[in-house]
Amino acid sequence: MSTALLTDLYELTMAQSFLEHGKTGRAVFSISVRTMPPERNFLVSCGLDSLIRYLTTFTFTAEDISYLRSLDKFTDDFLTWLSSFRFSGDVIAVPEGRIVFESEPLVRIEGSLPEVQILETIALNLIHHQTVIASKAARMMAVSRGHGLVDFGLRRAHGPEGGTYAARATYIAGFLGTSNVEAGRLYGIPVSGTMAHSYVLVFPSEEEAFRAYIKTFPDDPVLLIDTYDTMAGVATAARLATEGLPVSAVRIDSGDIASIVPQVRQYLDEHGHSHIRIIATGGVDEHDIDRWLQAGIPIDSFGVGTKLLTSSDIPFLDMTYKLVEYEGIPRSKTSPGKVTIPGRREIYRYYNDEGLMDHDEISTETTGKSGEKLLETVIQNGNLTGFDTSLEQSRERFRHDVNRLPVGMKGLTQNRYRVIIR
Amino acid sequence: MSTALLTDLYELTMAQSFLEHGKTGRAVFSISVRTMPPERNFLVSCGLDSLIRYLTTFTFTAEDISYLRSLDKFTDDFLTWLSSFRFSGDVIAVPEGRIVFESEPLVRIEGSLPEVQILETIALNLIHHQTVIASKAARMMAVSRGHGLVDFGLRRAHGPEGGTYAARATYIAGFLGTSNVEAGRLYGIPVSGTMAHSYVLVFPSEEEAFRAYIKTFPDDPVLLIDTYDTMAGVATAARLATEGLPVSAVRIDSGDIASIVPQVRQYLDEHGHSHIRIIATGGVDEHDIDRWLQAGIPIDSFGVGTKLLTSSDIPFLDMTYKLVEYEGIPRSKTSPGKVTIPGRREIYRYYNDEGLMDHDEISTETTGKSGEKLLETVIQNGNLTGFDTSLEQSRERFRHDVNRLPVGMKGLTQNRYRVIIR
Repeated sequence: MSTALLTDLYELTMAQSFLEHGKTGRAVFSISVRTMPPERNFLVSCGLDSLIRYLTTFTFTAEDISYLRSLDKFTDDFLTWLSSFRFSGDVIAVPEGRIVFESEPLVRIEGSLPEVQILETIALNLIHHQTVIASKAARMMAVSRGHGLVDFGLRRAHGPEGGTYAARATYIAGFLGTSNVEAGRLYGIPVSGTMAHSYVLVFPSEEEAFRAYIKTFPDDPVLLIDTYDTMAGVATAARLATEGLPVSAVRIDSGDIASIVPQVRQYLDEHGHSHIRIIATGGVDEHDIDRWLQAGIPIDSFGVGTKLLTSSDIPFLDMTYKLVEYEGIPRSKTSPGKVTIPGRREIYRYYNDEGLMDHDEISTETTGKSGEKLLETVIQNGNLTGFDTSLEQSRERFRHDVNRLPVGMKGLTQNRYRVIIR
Repeated sequence: MSTALLTDLYELTMAQSFLEHGKTGRAVFSISVRTMPPERNFLVSCGLDSLIRYLTTFTFTAEDISYLRSLDKFTDDFLTWLSSFRFSGDVIAVPEGRIVFESEPLVRIEGSLPEVQILETIALNLIHHQTVIASKAARMMAVSRGHGLVDFGLRRAHGPEGGTYAARATYIAGFLGTSNVEAGRLYGIPVSGTMAHSYVLVFPSEEEAFRAYIKTFPDDPVLLIDTYDTMAGVATAARLATEGLPVSAVRIDSGDIASIVPQVRQYLDEHGHSHIRIIATGGVDEHDIDRWLQAGIPIDSFGVGTKLLTSSDIPFLDMTYKLVEYEGIPRSKTSPGKVTIPGRREIYRYYNDEGLMDHDEISTETTGKSGEKLLETVIQNGNLTGFDTSLEQSRERFRHDVNRLPVGMKGLTQNRYRVIIR
């Protein structure tokens, strides 16, 4: 799939008109979330790595230009300009994995007006989607009380590429790994997965299926025990373990988890297999995780899919890419409900005496505040600055921030963090 | 992005184990939606074109194999099998654009067990996502009363590829076009778009911005009139039109559409510009479209984005890929709430005397029913059968089906179509 054309047409029509009218001065665009949905106490910045890769590599190919010419809309001058286009501006952004809030400038892109205008659609697409998913994943992590979470959502993600970006976002937010093999290859994320119901169905019996699987994969086998009857399934798994066959865990994908898991745990324990873990999957969301763990349901880890990779309760955020300055002069529109905060802004974070986050301030750069500055320059004049955007570092940033989040912000009850705009 | 690895790891572990245990008999998997959400009266089959392209081209590259080897999980025999893998089975499916319902087999994939098992994740991903979006788009079309709808959602789609597949899905469901240039290039969908607020902001005045834009694009210019004050904006647009400058339409992206649009319409009409159309955008969904058009708000067309391309009310369907037959014997699991309908099934559609859809029957193929058969063989022994999967044909199928949908099924009130399982 070509990349330079992954844009709304109006970015290109505007760019041609800007060039025609000499509107090539320095422009500053800022990405931020206008309002937080009630279902999110905090967001996790994500998508910057994809954006940086895009900005430092994309070009309009001959094929792209030829398609644009066929639209009979663009001048030869403009198409020539596109042909030699290379992003040569600056990107100042909150690093991936950091906890952020409404109104905060997550990414600032600066350069000549036409060149930064045409980035709007793709920049929003990458930052929005991945921030949506990382924030959903973080919400699950925040109630997981140390239990492992794994992404199983590729099949229900909105397109394969989206599922792969999303797997990375969940890993930044503390997930242990993913079922998505491509995400494993691309990003080095640990991959996991063993069997589906179809595996069990093609053998004459559940027991034969389990034996066959263990024979092929004697290291760490996870047996899916609910194809027919879960208690019969666990009895079979326990019997094989008693025989000395390796059984690492059982997975339960259906039924009333809260009622069946304690019975499965008890059965395993009574038969001397307290080492066999229990994995719950199947439509799990953060409310399930929180409720089950609060009730002491002995689930060891969770496979989370559909509701995570579609961020089903909040599939979008009110995130925008807005012109905040042109030729050194702050700009803002006044459309009802859509007023922009003009000018280049910094985020300063302040901590309380216990080292927990107390509040953030969004100020113009010139105020010289003392708080922790969240924005970093990642691209300067089109070149990488060397700022560490590695996945492990991003994961570490999230771990660090989540430990400094006030306790009341971590749960599923709505809580507002204080963000002051100066 | 590599494609063959866009799968859950367990598809590959199962395949290796199937091969080891000689489980290479003919298997039949079926994709269907288990239950319809209350917010959807019908679904629109979509994603088959992407799936066919995938099935007829994908291979495991040397790089893929090398990554899989590094996981230390797979045998040399299995990796060799993957290296020479080419899909050689059959695909029987409901063509894109057709209206479908719960429990109906949308896609059936047949072949040797390991080869059809490993397709589960990607097949579900492509069919699920695009069916979700086409069904959401169709719901908007069904209440649009002939007014044009255009997809503006790329920026909020879950990844750029997802946004592009989605643009195609909305086009099948009757949308006029998209803002997504890549979707235009790939699929030949009409593209549209003119200016954002940022365009207006960099000129000394709204009027100068409008004049500049019209100078660059005198054909069919659409002026965005709500950057500062919508009534002042329309006055400026009308003044330019009175001067004789071309103004095709005005776009309003904010504020109370139901109250401002009639004022804008009246202003334009009173100033002799009844030919200037009004386009509404900004968080529009089918409830807005239905309510506004029902109230006679004089909107000519709609740009629909975020809520369409995330299918925000129903971002996922309960769609599964289930083994229904192995070595000629129907199979089904009995997990609570997840019981599968076994065996190869056909969909037969029956119409009433007025030519409207009356009910569907899902029967085993051998019943020899008289209704219209919905399933078509699109791939046989790994090769395309020549069945027409073109975009225009798919769009035509939707147009045809939606005209035969009973009136009560088209609105936003919940209605259940009769589907009989035999």
